[in-house]
Amino acid sequence: MAGMKQSRLFTKTRKEAPADEVSKNAQLLIRGGFAHKEMAGVYAYLPLGLRVLNKIEAITREEMNSVGGQELIMTSLQSKDTWDKTGRWDDEAVDVWFKSELAAGGEIGFAWSHEEPIAGMLKNYISSYKDLPIYVYQFQTKLRNELRAKSGIMRGREFVMKDMYSFCIGEEDHNKIYQDTIDAYNRVFDRVGLGEDTYMTFASGGAFTQFSHEFQTITEAGEDVIYINKEKNIAINEEVMNDETLAELGVTKDELQEVKTAEVGNIFNFGRQKAEDVGLTFKDETGADIPVWMGSYGIGITRLMGVVVEKFADEKGMVWPESIAPFRVHLVSLAGNDEEVADFAEGIYDNLCERGVEVLYDDRDERAGAKFADSDLIGIPYRVVVSRKTKDEKQFEVVERVSGETSFVSEEELYQRFANVTD
Amino acid sequence: MAGMKQSRLFTKTRKEAPADEVSKNAQLLIRGGFAHKEMAGVYAYLPLGLRVLNKIEAITREEMNSVGGQELIMTSLQSKDTWDKTGRWDDEAVDVWFKSELAAGGEIGFAWSHEEPIAGMLKNYISSYKDLPIYVYQFQTKLRNELRAKSGIMRGREFVMKDMYSFCIGEEDHNKIYQDTIDAYNRVFDRVGLGEDTYMTFASGGAFTQFSHEFQTITEAGEDVIYINKEKNIAINEEVMNDETLAELGVTKDELQEVKTAEVGNIFNFGRQKAEDVGLTFKDETGADIPVWMGSYGIGITRLMGVVVEKFADEKGMVWPESIAPFRVHLVSLAGNDEEVADFAEGIYDNLCERGVEVLYDDRDERAGAKFADSDLIGIPYRVVVSRKTKDEKQFEVVERVSGETSFVSEEELYQRFANVTD
Repeated sequence: MAGMKQSRLFTKTRKEAPADEVSKNAQLLIRGGFAHKEMAGVYAYLPLGLRVLNKIEAITREEMNSVGGQELIMTSLQSKDTWDKTGRWDDEAVDVWFKSELAAGGEIGFAWSHEEPIAGMLKNYISSYKDLPIYVYQFQTKLRNELRAKSGIMRGREFVMKDMYSFCIGEEDHNKIYQDTIDAYNRVFDRVGLGEDTYMTFASGGAFTQFSHEFQTITEAGEDVIYINKEKNIAINEEVMNDETLAELGVTKDELQEVKTAEVGNIFNFGRQKAEDVGLTFKDETGADIPVWMGSYGIGITRLMGVVVEKFADEKGMVWPESIAPFRVHLVSLAGNDEEVADFAEGIYDNLCERGVEVLYDDRDERAGAKFADSDLIGIPYRVVVSRKTKDEKQFEVVERVSGETSFVSEEELYQRFANVTD
Repeated sequence: MAGMKQSRLFTKTRKEAPADEVSKNAQLLIRGGFAHKEMAGVYAYLPLGLRVLNKIEAITREEMNSVGGQELIMTSLQSKDTWDKTGRWDDEAVDVWFKSELAAGGEIGFAWSHEEPIAGMLKNYISSYKDLPIYVYQFQTKLRNELRAKSGIMRGREFVMKDMYSFCIGEEDHNKIYQDTIDAYNRVFDRVGLGEDTYMTFASGGAFTQFSHEFQTITEAGEDVIYINKEKNIAINEEVMNDETLAELGVTKDELQEVKTAEVGNIFNFGRQKAEDVGLTFKDETGADIPVWMGSYGIGITRLMGVVVEKFADEKGMVWPESIAPFRVHLVSLAGNDEEVADFAEGIYDNLCERGVEVLYDDRDERAGAKFADSDLIGIPYRVVVSRKTKDEKQFEVVERVSGETSFVSEEELYQRFANVTD
């Protein structure tokens, strides 16, 4: 069913977010009925919010499939053994663990990452070089025991990540999937509307490579600082902003602009170290055991939603890009007590649904002003108003949320404009 | 993409499940590459398994939407406050809690249920009788600190549940959604292939009602015992099997047959008690504050998958009902080194994909015997064999997994039989 009646939607807009909510994204998402704050850094997603998340996931899934990724779902409960192998069970090494005790005895951890468990799982499926390469990914809830959580859904104690992992014979194959995934990530950020302000950014690389790569989106709500050169399409995280990096990338400090950003994705080259620690090896053509060359590739799905809110919201509320909006059209009936107009509006709703248009239909008995304020807050890309005047003059007012531009179209034009062309 | 090449699928079948795995469902799912055992009672779902789960979820989602359910997703992290209100934070009251400490201070719990959090969340959206009824549901991972976990994915420490909750003005409205959901549940179990052996069963009702209702599926792997009368379509859980119940339901013990079953769903009437404890009230037409009448409705999604494996598997492996099979057709190429046949098989695969047929294409360089054994283990409903003989005689062998029945069809008939008719 493409449509939903607002009178049936259990969420209502709220004038105020909880008093302790300081981030703009969470304030708007809560006021609009997209999210519910369970506690600091922990948010539930209500019907409108879940629709947005599902669309971000669908776009990401398509792009991960396009590079050959195979989807699976790992577990939240994790064993000490798995993480001991890399020394990362230790709270000194990883300071965001939630841990508990099994009733049956022994410690248990809650997934803050799945690097070690996925590498461990693949020991069952990798034995020869013929088994490689393998790319697997999941959409998974991560639990992190963060000391502070003040950025709404941009940094939570519980959040959804898409994490992909690559398993290759060696560096050449690794470099190929690494580059393919960079291209796929750029497509994801383009498609969710963040492409123009998202930079692949050189960041610290860890033990095996000089740099890792982050995808950073310019926003005042971000927690990172990077240096960008738009023309050269170069971006450098402040953590590796030094003479050596500048020389390597062929830019001078003067050519760079400092901006605040939020990290929406990152990709990382593990070399053979992680697989060596975990014991994930393959036999090469000579029969020798070689550790697999691993990479990891993350996109913060819920964070991405928060960044979109932060970047596009205006003083009236949220502004969703069409690709991830909960609905495409907000059909607002101003029928009041006029049953003829109410029936007319209902007919338009039915026709839009029949044509596969995703439409939220405001059939509530509310004042026009309240309906428009709610519509602006919820931020659906196009508002279509149906009133006595619409019916009499056979002209529908269409308001674009992002620009406020108004146009008038006939009923037939309305369907043509918004109907999903599927054949 | 409707199809997948088996040479690209990273999982491989295994001769043996882990030695400590005693349940048939998990043994087969692990051997077939559907699931990975992370630890006792904790299973990851690999590409084939995830496809099955997604189909069970899609069927369930359709039926929950059909009764007016609105989908959302709550959180894994839960607060002590929320559960203290009903006395269920206490480990004496609930013995399956996983708990941990927040770095920022205070205790935190991991979701074993969402009854209290959902009721708490709805305090933001229910104030008047006009706001009711509301039905909400989610597909959510539950974490339970079970002492024992020996039934594979049928009783895990981590599992996926669909849980729906109803919020009504009073008993009359409650009874309507309760009955609607019974009907929807019967449709779900019918559609996943368990309808014939699944009984709505009278079980103990708790404080507010004489009975609750469970949906129990007959299987030797089950942990429950119920008494059924097929003709009268009556089933009674042994826990309420007494003279009073027999009299009430108008059956005698002699008319009942004892069977082992697994609980695949349950529905429960809370009356107004839960809402009263949580403080979830609405104002009626006189302005009085009345606690909401609540119900809860669960289906164990991963358990359902386990029950399907247990019920339909034979000595060769799994047997999936068409509605939830990972693929509809297993296309097995016996080309060997014959490139002409390999090209021919590839063409058939492409044609099936183009027509939207969900097809797993065994393009691997393996002996016929190994391919057939794998195919039987994986349990896709129809196997289509392509060999030199197929190409020369233009007749495709189609073997139905469940019956072993073989038929021969032309290429055109093959497409007609399996193509999804979408226009």
